[in-house]
Amino acid sequence: MIFIRKIVLCLGLLIAVNSHAELKGTGDLGIIIERAVGQVKLINTSKRTDIGIIKGLGDLSHASATFSRDARYAFVFGRDGGLTKIDLLTNKINKRIIQAGNSIGGAISQDGKLVAVSNYEPGGVRIFDSETLAPVTDIPAEYGAGEFSKVVGLVDAPGQRFVFSLYDAGEIWVVDINDPNKPVITKFKNVGLQPYDALITPDGRYYIAGLFGENGLAVLDLWNIDKGVKKVLTNYGRGTEKLPVYKMPHLEGWALAGKHLFIPAIGEHAVVIIDPDSWQEVARIKTYGQPVFAIARPDGRHVWVNFAFPKNDRLQIIDTAKMEIVKELSPGKAVLHMEFTPRGEEVWVSIRDEDRVDVYDTETFDALAEISVDKPSGIFFTHRAHKIGL
Amino acid sequence: MIFIRKIVLCLGLLIAVNSHAELKGTGDLGIIIERAVGQVKLINTSKRTDIGIIKGLGDLSHASATFSRDARYAFVFGRDGGLTKIDLLTNKINKRIIQAGNSIGGAISQDGKLVAVSNYEPGGVRIFDSETLAPVTDIPAEYGAGEFSKVVGLVDAPGQRFVFSLYDAGEIWVVDINDPNKPVITKFKNVGLQPYDALITPDGRYYIAGLFGENGLAVLDLWNIDKGVKKVLTNYGRGTEKLPVYKMPHLEGWALAGKHLFIPAIGEHAVVIIDPDSWQEVARIKTYGQPVFAIARPDGRHVWVNFAFPKNDRLQIIDTAKMEIVKELSPGKAVLHMEFTPRGEEVWVSIRDEDRVDVYDTETFDALAEISVDKPSGIFFTHRAHKIGL
Repeated sequence: MIFIRKIVLCLGLLIAVNSHAELKGTGDLGIIIERAVGQVKLINTSKRTDIGIIKGLGDLSHASATFSRDARYAFVFGRDGGLTKIDLLTNKINKRIIQAGNSIGGAISQDGKLVAVSNYEPGGVRIFDSETLAPVTDIPAEYGAGEFSKVVGLVDAPGQRFVFSLYDAGEIWVVDINDPNKPVITKFKNVGLQPYDALITPDGRYYIAGLFGENGLAVLDLWNIDKGVKKVLTNYGRGTEKLPVYKMPHLEGWALAGKHLFIPAIGEHAVVIIDPDSWQEVARIKTYGQPVFAIARPDGRHVWVNFAFPKNDRLQIIDTAKMEIVKELSPGKAVLHMEFTPRGEEVWVSIRDEDRVDVYDTETFDALAEISVDKPSGIFFTHRAHKIGL
Repeated sequence: MIFIRKIVLCLGLLIAVNSHAELKGTGDLGIIIERAVGQVKLINTSKRTDIGIIKGLGDLSHASATFSRDARYAFVFGRDGGLTKIDLLTNKINKRIIQAGNSIGGAISQDGKLVAVSNYEPGGVRIFDSETLAPVTDIPAEYGAGEFSKVVGLVDAPGQRFVFSLYDAGEIWVVDINDPNKPVITKFKNVGLQPYDALITPDGRYYIAGLFGENGLAVLDLWNIDKGVKKVLTNYGRGTEKLPVYKMPHLEGWALAGKHLFIPAIGEHAVVIIDPDSWQEVARIKTYGQPVFAIARPDGRHVWVNFAFPKNDRLQIIDTAKMEIVKELSPGKAVLHMEFTPRGEEVWVSIRDEDRVDVYDTETFDALAEISVDKPSGIFFTHRAHKIGL
């Protein structure tokens, strides 16, 4: 009798161990945000399929994610201030905290030890231990007596720094967190009206903030930080006639292809091509709709563009050498996001209103796979763990 | 009695499962070649330590490695023609074959399904299934009736292609392996005398071969392949006086930092700075010895340089903005190789004659860790799995 129980027990244990013990590399994994149901779908890019679901992540209506330096964990930043650390190997939530009332995004430090979240409410940045999610330091975005700003465009930068923008204050702050308990903050004031989003160039040198309240872009050269913030492309914006803007373009998507920057025009049906040395416009390509993302294939030969409502059913692909559109695809209603595989042979596209993610061959443009996903938005692959600013 | 045996049995099984079942991400792993003893040391860059040894890899005197797209397996290319697939999760050899008599390097295809090896003997390239190491196709480097060339400078390129150079023939071949069983070969003849090594730019556009038999470099623009191979930097080489060259520089190491290419001068104590648009020399920085590798920190702000025998005991660090040496380190005798962590906060340096690998902070230049390794040479981290040409 005891003997039987022992066997049952030990079989049970063996199954328990094995069920969680599937050894696999984490280099070809990723997550897709199911925005409406507060879930994340785990995927495998080698198999082109979904491999699991993680539930209970709260409000993911404007969620983004970053990855631990071992590429095992994803940190998901929810709109409701939730910060959730999920384990891609056990398909489980590792830790979850509500760190603020309303947050907009996050970043991981160069050394992978700290995770920072940018918040609307209370306005500021909070920094956590990436291992435990224990709070490390709090940086309120106070720009006047008792005045706190919404924080946007938070990115990591080389030298253990975070950079972000204060929407209400029109400021850019650089935070050196080499000593996490004593962050050293450098503030740049009057950078422009209402910075609404930002990006950092892949080499981590230039921090570029888009402005909602005026034309132009605010650029900070992190190699020459004492030169301060420079205003560039002063004709870039909604112009004087203030065209109807269905959605301000996402800056993270900006494509540096070869020597040029391909950026979505604001309120216009066009992609603007910029020479980043002179910050002059080189050319302008007419597009199907108002671009939201213009993302370069990893080799920079093509730039993929999606569009704002109501013309958000298509993709256009620009050849960066010919500077012309070479292909158009119609995946379906509400094409929200694109993510390229690390070496660029495939791209994953989320089509929200079709509850579908499509996988395309980036050379032939053939659809290789379809994955059913509930209202998919952001798609994030683990190779981001190894990239400055992602 | 039976009952006891059962318990022992099931404990045994549990231990067996657990010992191989340590779940971990593979994003912060890597290998170090122990060239003299035919072993590979496994390391973890987050812990800054070695985590295992894999023995029985044959002659690793000029070994290199690449990684599977899931970042779980490393493919190690031995000098003796051995191709070994090692499992970074179980610390074991997964597969090993002797695929030729004398080989020099290898690459993995853009989609991760094929591994190619470049051979001296028999001269050519052999392509294998990355899953099983089963032979897929053989490409003998026959350039004349019964004349076979040593193959060097093998890299992967976007569009499921491999590119390599024929040392004896002075040719560059581009192989399209979209149909692995029917490779489409494009041959470029008379590219220059004795191409000895090559690199592909990080975007996968330019294939650049160094020439042993004459001055200059052979450049193929893969975006304009019909324009053929162009000869550039015709003053780059050993010059007319034929200086003593202790070691031809490694091309894989070439650093594209910002808008400039930092390349080792040949037989000279200098690093040459090139404008890749015009292929003109912009400046020349005097160095301690004959440079072997000049490798850019991932953010491109610094270039780290090591040197050929007999002055191979030091490192010099160049500031790419100031174009001057800002730091010198003396790690010890025979500094052979450097590998940066993906976001560039640390660099691992192999010091062969000291049987040691040092880890440095790339901002403060402090030594953070020392790892004892038997005659270390190449260091390879798993993020290479996600990079074109690596």
